Amino acid sequence: PRTVHAPRGTTLSCKGWQQEAAMRMLMNNLDPEVAERPDDLVVYGGAGRAARSWAAFDAIVRSLQQLENDETLLVQSGKPVGIFRTHPDAPRVLIANSNLVPHWANWDEFRRLEALGLTMYGQMTAGSWIYIGSQGIVQGTYETFAEAARRHFGGSLKGKFVLTAGLGGMGGAQPLACTMNGGVCLAVEVDESRIRRRLETGYCDEIASTLDEALNQVREACGQGQPLSIGLIGNAAEIYPELVRRGIIPDMVTDQTSAHDALNGYIPAGYTLEEANKLRERDPQEYIKLSRASMVTHVQAMLEMQKRGAVVFDYGNNLRGQALEAGENHAMDFPGFVPAYIRPLFCRGKGPFRWVALSGDPEDIYRTDEALMELFPENESLHRWLKMAQKKIHFQGLPARICWLGYGERDKAGLKFNELVAKGIVKAPIVIGRDHLDSGSVASPYRETEAMKDGSDAIADWPLLNAMLNTASGATWVSLHHGGGVGIGYSIHAGQVIVADGTPEAAARLKRVLTNDPGTGVMRHVDAGYDEAIDCARELGVQIPMLD
Amino acid sequence: PRTVHAPRGTTLSCKGWQQEAAMRMLMNNLDPEVAERPDDLVVYGGAGRAARSWAAFDAIVRSLQQLENDETLLVQSGKPVGIFRTHPDAPRVLIANSNLVPHWANWDEFRRLEALGLTMYGQMTAGSWIYIGSQGIVQGTYETFAEAARRHFGGSLKGKFVLTAGLGGMGGAQPLACTMNGGVCLAVEVDESRIRRRLETGYCDEIASTLDEALNQVREACGQGQPLSIGLIGNAAEIYPELVRRGIIPDMVTDQTSAHDALNGYIPAGYTLEEANKLRERDPQEYIKLSRASMVTHVQAMLEMQKRGAVVFDYGNNLRGQALEAGENHAMDFPGFVPAYIRPLFCRGKGPFRWVALSGDPEDIYRTDEALMELFPENESLHRWLKMAQKKIHFQGLPARICWLGYGERDKAGLKFNELVAKGIVKAPIVIGRDHLDSGSVASPYRETEAMKDGSDAIADWPLLNAMLNTASGATWVSLHHGGGVGIGYSIHAGQVIVADGTPEAAARLKRVLTNDPGTGVMRHVDAGYDEAIDCARELGVQIPMLD
Ligand SMILES: NC(=O)c1ccc[n+]([C@@H]2O[C@H](COP(=O)([O-])OP(=O)(O)OC[C@H]3O[C@@H](n4cnc5c(N)ncnc54)[C@H](O)[C@@H]3O)[C@@H](O)[C@H]2O)c1
Ligand SMILES: NC(=O)c1ccc[n+]([C@@H]2O[C@H](COP(=O)([O-])OP(=O)(O)OC[C@H]3O[C@@H](n4cnc5c(N)ncnc54)[C@H](O)[C@@H]3O)[C@@H](O)[C@H]2O)c1
Repeated sequence: PRTVHAPRGTTLSCKGWQQEAAMRMLMNNLDPEVAERPDDLVVYGGAGRAARSWAAFDAIVRSLQQLENDETLLVQSGKPVGIFRTHPDAPRVLIANSNLVPHWANWDEFRRLEALGLTMYGQMTAGSWIYIGSQGIVQGTYETFAEAARRHFGGSLKGKFVLTAGLGGMGGAQPLACTMNGGVCLAVEVDESRIRRRLETGYCDEIASTLDEALNQVREACGQGQPLSIGLIGNAAEIYPELVRRGIIPDMVTDQTSAHDALNGYIPAGYTLEEANKLRERDPQEYIKLSRASMVTHVQAMLEMQKRGAVVFDYGNNLRGQALEAGENHAMDFPGFVPAYIRPLFCRGKGPFRWVALSGDPEDIYRTDEALMELFPENESLHRWLKMAQKKIHFQGLPARICWLGYGERDKAGLKFNELVAKGIVKAPIVIGRDHLDSGSVASPYRETEAMKDGSDAIADWPLLNAMLNTASGATWVSLHHGGGVGIGYSIHAGQVIVADGTPEAAARLKRVLTNDPGTGVMRHVDAGYDEAIDCARELGVQIPMLD
Repeated sequence: PRTVHAPRGTTLSCKGWQQEAAMRMLMNNLDPEVAERPDDLVVYGGAGRAARSWAAFDAIVRSLQQLENDETLLVQSGKPVGIFRTHPDAPRVLIANSNLVPHWANWDEFRRLEALGLTMYGQMTAGSWIYIGSQGIVQGTYETFAEAARRHFGGSLKGKFVLTAGLGGMGGAQPLACTMNGGVCLAVEVDESRIRRRLETGYCDEIASTLDEALNQVREACGQGQPLSIGLIGNAAEIYPELVRRGIIPDMVTDQTSAHDALNGYIPAGYTLEEANKLRERDPQEYIKLSRASMVTHVQAMLEMQKRGAVVFDYGNNLRGQALEAGENHAMDFPGFVPAYIRPLFCRGKGPFRWVALSGDPEDIYRTDEALMELFPENESLHRWLKMAQKKIHFQGLPARICWLGYGERDKAGLKFNELVAKGIVKAPIVIGRDHLDSGSVASPYRETEAMKDGSDAIADWPLLNAMLNTASGATWVSLHHGGGVGIGYSIHAGQVIVADGTPEAAARLKRVLTNDPGTGVMRHVDAGYDEAIDCARELGVQIPMLD
């Protein structure tokens, strides 16, 4: 247990910027400003870790510092396990996290192996060293809420009551994303300290400790059409049903507790945090049972709200899947957010593109913001987002930015950033990555690939091809994970990160990786038969052998 | 349905030897001399296919013929899905076969998706285009039987009665591997045509249609210490128990029916082939039930033989796993062949190295045989194998050779072969690959990673790292599969193939790939705590960050 901050500036402690970038991003994931529980190496999403142990962390750092520019470090579930000679255009780090042979891919076996010290939970960007704090999800949530507003409420959430729960690493972005869309957000969170944290960072406006108090504020703000967000101290499995009992039906309902992990991510109804901690220690099986039972209550309230006219969707935490397993057969009656709002973007290779300034200087991010606005002058929503982000987003750890870009855009952005580095317009290299939740990088039948047009939800070849192609194209590090946001057994997904260090070699790699990576997303959706993807492939020249 | 032969000689129909090699090896996998059911694109191992359909086959061939030397073709479960610009040192083809998100990784879901045309069964070397017919397994089986002989019978099977079943693509090697070790083999096979095929290729000596007849021959040969192999027309689930009833206990017992696939790979007791085909069509669920029930009987006989003193082992077809699922709780009481005989080899990166002469000329293989014997003058068992192979092995399709080489040996062999190509000592490039059953490339708790020292049997990060590292190192094609010999749900494994075309660029790639690929095997076994692997890493300089 110690406090970790990534070094800033241009002094290298590694033998090249690629290794340096990996080292700084690992450290940045564990920065107390970024990580949810840095002492336990937990970055976000329940138990998503950056390294298996502090000894493993130290060994990774040491390995990166010694790594040559033609070597590749292998990391197995947060532990460095081998260094091999490859070549300068190969990745410097290859990562596989939490993967299990399918028949054994359940939480019991995972926990058994974790207790033996043989694995760790990598989540998506925790174990692949490209988590950038709540901003990452703000943009995704903003896009999702905006799309929902367009679909259901004529383009704005003004005057609308949005109910959600969970203000953790990801969920904490919901209040801000909601008010950015003009809405009124009530977010139920059992852990008061999580709400306080969101207040401090300006992601949430108010805190309430009783439902009545919160509802008064909601009513007033909705009436006046004022954006407002309130964190209510409480348990979703109690508050949601209570709203139903009172006949109070919000306009939109979702949830971002860490329901995917019944033991560590969800607090059963009726338990204080302390009581829950004790029970978890004493009787994990009982805990899981209670936790799942609460999820059933939680989901039943959401189903009832849906019946009474609310727009209800699952926000990627497998709450429905857990309730289904616990016996609620209607759990899948409300949709996941991906088929509802995100898939049309995926068809064009669009997804959460993000970048980080290794200099540590926020000015560098503002320079990239400007460059992007110049590069895509016609993209209004991009301009709106970047301006709002500059005002509202507090940087956590190394300054970073996120925006959704697609096929034919990411490569342009990457080359532009490389140019900014080469010309000294930014002070140090820029790290470019993305979430594993992206158009070509994930198979997850309860989230990203729910309800695919051709029924291919469970086919996991796609993320593996994505990882291998990013490796072949020369990403700086590539990762392949199992589990992620929906938990063990439910998803396979890949990540890539690439460094723009201003060199022509980096430019060639950036062009390849940032074309091919979203290209696999277009390809995957062409294969599934989506017209938007087929149009995109034809317009932009993605080569699909069996298309024509 | 058509007859496929790979082109021979040095005329290219692709834009480079790497693409040409992939095309010829795909075609060679479907050569009637090589494939078990070429009309259905089935190469071996039940339903292991080389391409998803004939349309997909044609599209792969077309794609390879058009593929530039800096492009990479992606193949998703036997279908070409995308072509991307990479670079000359990247793989030309990346393949992912049969992978499913773990929670959905069962036969029912796989078959549902297969029926929808969304996937195919890739087995190990079928969908990754490096199957070379029965020879591949002869060497493995020879090594296994030899090791078993050393362990239990003082080094030879002379005068020993070895009982097995299944003379399919892999299993057909057993009679020959047994007689090569001096033993007497009784192989029960329900399909007479399979036995006849083994007689024609000289892998099996005799055919018998009654047990009495067969047992007389066994007794005589054992008495005289004469090597002999007999294919007995019959069902293992009937013959094995009958032997127990008669009190006839062989010295060694195993089985290579395609038990991993209860529907397509195993014939239930009491059924003729035709009856079985009809039932399979009419009522697949009933078929599977009967099939599994027969496997229980089959395993119970093996358990009884073990009790009465026979050396009994599972030969990697998941027979035990199936019997366990069908309720035989003692199924796992006899060991798998890997922990019993193969793991010590894996600890030194040893596994089934293989190569193919693209010229089509057997002389080229004899040149490589000679070169290897010169390269490793001190390796007696290698010399013995190569000489025996030259005498006994009939080439199927393109001439090929296999032998087990380890870390520090494969790279030497690859560079030597590249030199033979460069100097014109062989007439065309040599393709070098291996089975997915190798030391660093597979996670399979009922076979390759059964009973690992640290309990890490089910950790699947290792094969993913292997595939990514081979991609980074510049293998010509790399594949990631699920299922393989033990069936859907039970394994994750990776393959690599690399072309020695005589160029210095190929030499650099060969050096990297053939060092790193077995290097991951040493690494994996070091991490699991095997002393042999730790010694190997220290002696040969494999870099393991947390070892010292
Ligand atoms: N939609 C997406 O794009 C996306 C992306 C990544 C992750 N996720 C998923 O979203 C979920 C949340 O992620 P996170 O990083 O915020 O997790 P987290 O563990 O940091 O936060 C979860 C929060 O929920 C609270 N909570 C738990 N049980 C509760 C209950 N019964 N009532 C009220 N509050 C409760 C916890 O106190 C905690 O603050 C995870 O399941 C994650 O996998 C979604
Ligand atoms: N040990 C290894 O190294 C290794 C490697 C690869 C595959 N395998 C596994 O070995 C098994 C055999 O592979 P294959 O390629 O030979 O398969 P195959 O399908 O070509 O042959 C199986 C044979 O078993 C026969 N058979 C089926 N049921 C029978 C019964 N009840 N009694 C007698 N004969 C019966 C079939 O007629 C067929 O000839 C597969 O499960 C495969 O996955 C093992």
